Amino acid sequence: MAPSVGVIMGSDSDWSTMEAAALALAEFDVPFEVGVVSAHRTVQKMVDYATTAADRGLKVIITGAGGAAHLPGMVAAMTPLPVIGVPVPLKYLDGMDSLLSIVQMPAGVPVATVSIGGARNAGLLAVRILAASDPELLAKMRAFQANLEQVVAEKDEALRAKLLG
Amino acid sequence: MAPSVGVIMGSDSDWSTMEAAALALAEFDVPFEVGVVSAHRTVQKMVDYATTAADRGLKVIITGAGGAAHLPGMVAAMTPLPVIGVPVPLKYLDGMDSLLSIVQMPAGVPVATVSIGGARNAGLLAVRILAASDPELLAKMRAFQANLEQVVAEKDEALRAKLLG
Amino acid sequence: MAPSVGVIMGSDSDWSTMEAAALALAEFDVPFEVGVVSAHRTVQKMVDYATTAADRGLKVIITGAGGAAHLPGMVAAMTPLPVIGVPVPLKYLDGMDSLLSIVQMPAGVPVATVSIGGARNAGLLAVRILAASDPELLAKMRAFQANLEQVVAEKDEALRAKLLG
Amino acid sequence: MAPSVGVIMGSDSDWSTMEAAALALAEFDVPFEVGVVSAHRTVQKMVDYATTAADRGLKVIITGAGGAAHLPGMVAAMTPLPVIGVPVPLKYLDGMDSLLSIVQMPAGVPVATVSIGGARNAGLLAVRILAASDPELLAKMRAFQANLEQVVAEKDEALRAKLLG
Amino acid sequence: MAPSVGVIMGSDSDWSTMEAAALALAEFDVPFEVGVVSAHRTVQKMVDYATTAADRGLKVIITGAGGAAHLPGMVAAMTPLPVIGVPVPLKYLDGMDSLLSIVQMPAGVPVATVSIGGARNAGLLAVRILAASDPELLAKMRAFQANLEQVVAEKDEALRAKLLG
Amino acid sequence: MAPSVGVIMGSDSDWSTMEAAALALAEFDVPFEVGVVSAHRTVQKMVDYATTAADRGLKVIITGAGGAAHLPGMVAAMTPLPVIGVPVPLKYLDGMDSLLSIVQMPAGVPVATVSIGGARNAGLLAVRILAASDPELLAKMRAFQANLEQVVAEKDEALRAKLLG
Amino acid sequence: MAPSVGVIMGSDSDWSTMEAAALALAEFDVPFEVGVVSAHRTVQKMVDYATTAADRGLKVIITGAGGAAHLPGMVAAMTPLPVIGVPVPLKYLDGMDSLLSIVQMPAGVPVATVSIGGARNAGLLAVRILAASDPELLAKMRAFQANLEQVVAEKDEALRAKLLG
Amino acid sequence: MAPSVGVIMGSDSDWSTMEAAALALAEFDVPFEVGVVSAHRTVQKMVDYATTAADRGLKVIITGAGGAAHLPGMVAAMTPLPVIGVPVPLKYLDGMDSLLSIVQMPAGVPVATVSIGGARNAGLLAVRILAASDPELLAKMRAFQANLEQVVAEKDEALRAKLLG
Repeated sequence: MAPSVGVIMGSDSDWSTMEAAALALAEFDVPFEVGVVSAHRTVQKMVDYATTAADRGLKVIITGAGGAAHLPGMVAAMTPLPVIGVPVPLKYLDGMDSLLSIVQMPAGVPVATVSIGGARNAGLLAVRILAASDPELLAKMRAFQANLEQVVAEKDEALRAKLLG
Repeated sequence: MAPSVGVIMGSDSDWSTMEAAALALAEFDVPFEVGVVSAHRTVQKMVDYATTAADRGLKVIITGAGGAAHLPGMVAAMTPLPVIGVPVPLKYLDGMDSLLSIVQMPAGVPVATVSIGGARNAGLLAVRILAASDPELLAKMRAFQANLEQVVAEKDEALRAKLLG
Repeated sequence: MAPSVGVIMGSDSDWSTMEAAALALAEFDVPFEVGVVSAHRTVQKMVDYATTAADRGLKVIITGAGGAAHLPGMVAAMTPLPVIGVPVPLKYLDGMDSLLSIVQMPAGVPVATVSIGGARNAGLLAVRILAASDPELLAKMRAFQANLEQVVAEKDEALRAKLLG
Repeated sequence: MAPSVGVIMGSDSDWSTMEAAALALAEFDVPFEVGVVSAHRTVQKMVDYATTAADRGLKVIITGAGGAAHLPGMVAAMTPLPVIGVPVPLKYLDGMDSLLSIVQMPAGVPVATVSIGGARNAGLLAVRILAASDPELLAKMRAFQANLEQVVAEKDEALRAKLLG
Repeated sequence: MAPSVGVIMGSDSDWSTMEAAALALAEFDVPFEVGVVSAHRTVQKMVDYATTAADRGLKVIITGAGGAAHLPGMVAAMTPLPVIGVPVPLKYLDGMDSLLSIVQMPAGVPVATVSIGGARNAGLLAVRILAASDPELLAKMRAFQANLEQVVAEKDEALRAKLLG
Repeated sequence: MAPSVGVIMGSDSDWSTMEAAALALAEFDVPFEVGVVSAHRTVQKMVDYATTAADRGLKVIITGAGGAAHLPGMVAAMTPLPVIGVPVPLKYLDGMDSLLSIVQMPAGVPVATVSIGGARNAGLLAVRILAASDPELLAKMRAFQANLEQVVAEKDEALRAKLLG
Repeated sequence: MAPSVGVIMGSDSDWSTMEAAALALAEFDVPFEVGVVSAHRTVQKMVDYATTAADRGLKVIITGAGGAAHLPGMVAAMTPLPVIGVPVPLKYLDGMDSLLSIVQMPAGVPVATVSIGGARNAGLLAVRILAASDPELLAKMRAFQANLEQVVAEKDEALRAKLLG
Repeated sequence: MAPSVGVIMGSDSDWSTMEAAALALAEFDVPFEVGVVSAHRTVQKMVDYATTAADRGLKVIITGAGGAAHLPGMVAAMTPLPVIGVPVPLKYLDGMDSLLSIVQMPAGVPVATVSIGGARNAGLLAVRILAASDPELLAKMRAFQANLEQVVAEKDEALRAKLLG
């Protein structure tokens, strides 16, 4: 099945963070593709990726990058699709540089930014975007949310049980 | 026409910031509704708004809030739709508190965060989300992007002209 | 004995931080209850908890949450009781996001915020609140404070002794 | 009527911020006293104030201070009563120094911290603390919260009316 | 004379900040060109500018941008020339987002970053870079530095005179 | 010999940081005393310490504290002697809270603040203060500074040697 | 009378901030000198100033600088005297850059740092340093502190009077 | 061959960070020298180094320093050459103090700042500066950049291969 979501990252070292986005998509049976595309080291490849994404059938692009993180914004500049940005934390500054470099985009070119290291939420946000026009996927998302509630209820019970011992 | 996008904010004083989201939607002829819904002062109204949004036909919800900004995350918790958060800057801290309160959501409940005060981009992101499954809107977004390019070209020319006198 | 204080947290992983609040309450023989209640994953449960707390006889609610920490503020919005918030530090940002998300509440809905990870102080603050109208508990708090002084005096002596060896 | 709440501040220039605490108390007919007590310039007065507060019948102390704000923590060290701290923003740093100096108290001595400049919430928090053991005041707080909801509903209506013009 | 330095900025509103770079170059009689090139709104123009800069005879490129400032890093990715980045402060965050977005570049693609709003220093840095292989320009820079010293000496004298009255 | 410098800290756990101040004083044969004095847990002891320090013959007081670090400022409020503050870093925030709580003192009550964890410099600063009116100690400080220079020269040589292999 | 304190600053524009240091010294009849000495623009002058200060009879040097504020640390490196640093706030960052550039000195070379813009406290700290070995000045400082207390008492009374109307 | 680039650092402990600058220069066969020169501990040596650098044939100076990092700015004040600054992260604050102390230079004295710990980029920036007037080196830089692209392409392929298993 042709991928609906592209998951790209600036460096293969980002994979340990970004894998969670791919897993979330897989949980919802959303077809996706994965790639390493660097804003700074493979500019032409990034241009090609971004400018052809919509025509290749992608609906959403998830991008992860760290430090002076330019990939999300640059891709958003070259596609009409919604672009999700994941601030990848690097060795210093706890991802605050990544967050600001991704979220503080100028008017005209939005990036849908999630939390520092929040790749799982990037995947889930892509699912919601697709679900907005796909009733079946919307139902799955509702079920997922109901399940979250169930998991917390179980943890609550377990904590009380431990304390009451 | 039934609204596709809901634009809500925690206080009517946020309107001066959030109006830009509404204007962006209007530019693309995307029908929307506007309201004041406070996470802290009108909890039940917020619950009702969020839990019924998808069934009422909304596809995207844009939320703006400042300080300990809980509206975007709470709405996201109660709807399967994509939720966009606009950090509204208050009197102190330049919106950094608003940004962190919106973007640092736990795994499971994403909020698509835009820049501090970036309501125009929130509107444009909503358009992109809708355009992902609407070829006509996608074409409009491409045209919009081409026009951005044109505007910069004109400003470039004007600047050079001014310098060359 | 019916609990006077409710200690709730957004995730069972917060227990390692929040346990200190429960221990402080136990030191003062203040009856309390404990639970996992997530603002984002169990909204209805949170609403039920907060709206019934006063009628169930609780006098104070201690809440712990991390990141975009919405639990303290949301509970405070739905109860007339004093709500204490503990910013739980997560993997990045050292709890600064948790702190700002809890303390920067809008006018009308206060959260009594303690230090990052400061659950023990949350418990002691709850004791002080109860003690304000309970002379016996007030006396216990005075004794506790006198003892703090004693402990420092002993540590001072020990340090001097070590140096004089 | 003997005051139940003491409202003190480090400098008379803090009054423009702290007045909102007094107004909130007055709205709830809670008797209070006001004073200028500086941790750094009137140490003995501060010691006297804090050590006698409980015996003088106070139930809660609200303290406001800016910069290296020591008044809230020092008062909390010398009284068994709950102490509320208001970070007063000074000329630089937007009150971040005031906030950290107040909220980051060591284990043993809690200060119930509210938002930067959040004196109104300090007053409301004091009311909640008193209301925890005063059913009549609790009912007033519930009414106050219901009214907040009403005010937002009216603002919502006004905003929609303006837009529909 | 063919320009040695290119001065480009993401928006014509950056000119009020960036003009100081042009003035510094003019003081040293270094030929330069000026343009508006947006990383996000005129991607192809930016690619063309950067990839042809060296062949067109430029030796240094000065770039100014604000917020999620991608222009300096993207240009640096596509030219072998030294690229200087000026963090332009926007309405919020005092340019801290601009600074981090420019300076925190990944290994392989350096941007020579100057202070927030420091366009004059960007111009002077470009002069130093050119002067490193141009003895005449180096002499001018030495003279400029000696003059800075003279100006301070005069200000020192004026201050002392004012005080001595 | 009667101590000239008092080295006090809020908790015995601060000793691992503060020991370096004592060692620096010992290197210069400056007599000193050490103690644990908590602003929050032993208020009266702190008051006694600070108000009697000058009469007991102390010339300088070095204070270390972390988090909402009130000891340095409170001691400074109660003694006419110069007070040096060492921001002790705690588990979160890297000592930024300690630094701001110590350095941002209001006009009238200065604290001579050194770097985060910079207890060695606190000791050396005390030596300089004493040396300002003690020619012999001033000579020792000059010798110490000359030696610093020598140590760097040796490290420089060692590094070059290693590289030249 | 020969000056005991030198007050220097990096730029004459710092005078509006630094004047308060001079005024504080004048209040205590401490003789001082004033000058503009730039770490970056008049290096040799700075070296001369710092290396001769002790021999010229100065006991303390007060330095003010903003941004990448190097003057305090450089002077401290070249004199055995105590050096006080005043972080001067510039147009952006509220003086946080100035503070960190002054206070975070490496082991071996302390700078006694006061608050952002805290020149008055720098003057008072210099007085305390001189007073440590000058009983008459110490008595003056005690009187000054008693007066601070008196002033607050009057403001307290005035505030109460205004409220009681 | 006479060195074109000087690589100096404030402490030999900075070598683990700064080594990457030397390696980058070596990759491009750019001759360089290395040394430990402390702004605070070896002022005269620093003055000598900076004032003679241009005459000794250096074209660029790379400087690394941490905390209140004064070496880059002081060297830039005393040479007409381009000076590159590497913010070395110390134990606390993740290098934010180092960054601000280096980048926030006053108008007149620029330092070309790279990322926190970004010594490799400092080396590459020096190469670019030299390459601006050296066609052969410019060609090498172009080849280096092409190779970066190739490396990413291989990593991309490897990641896809791993996922497709």
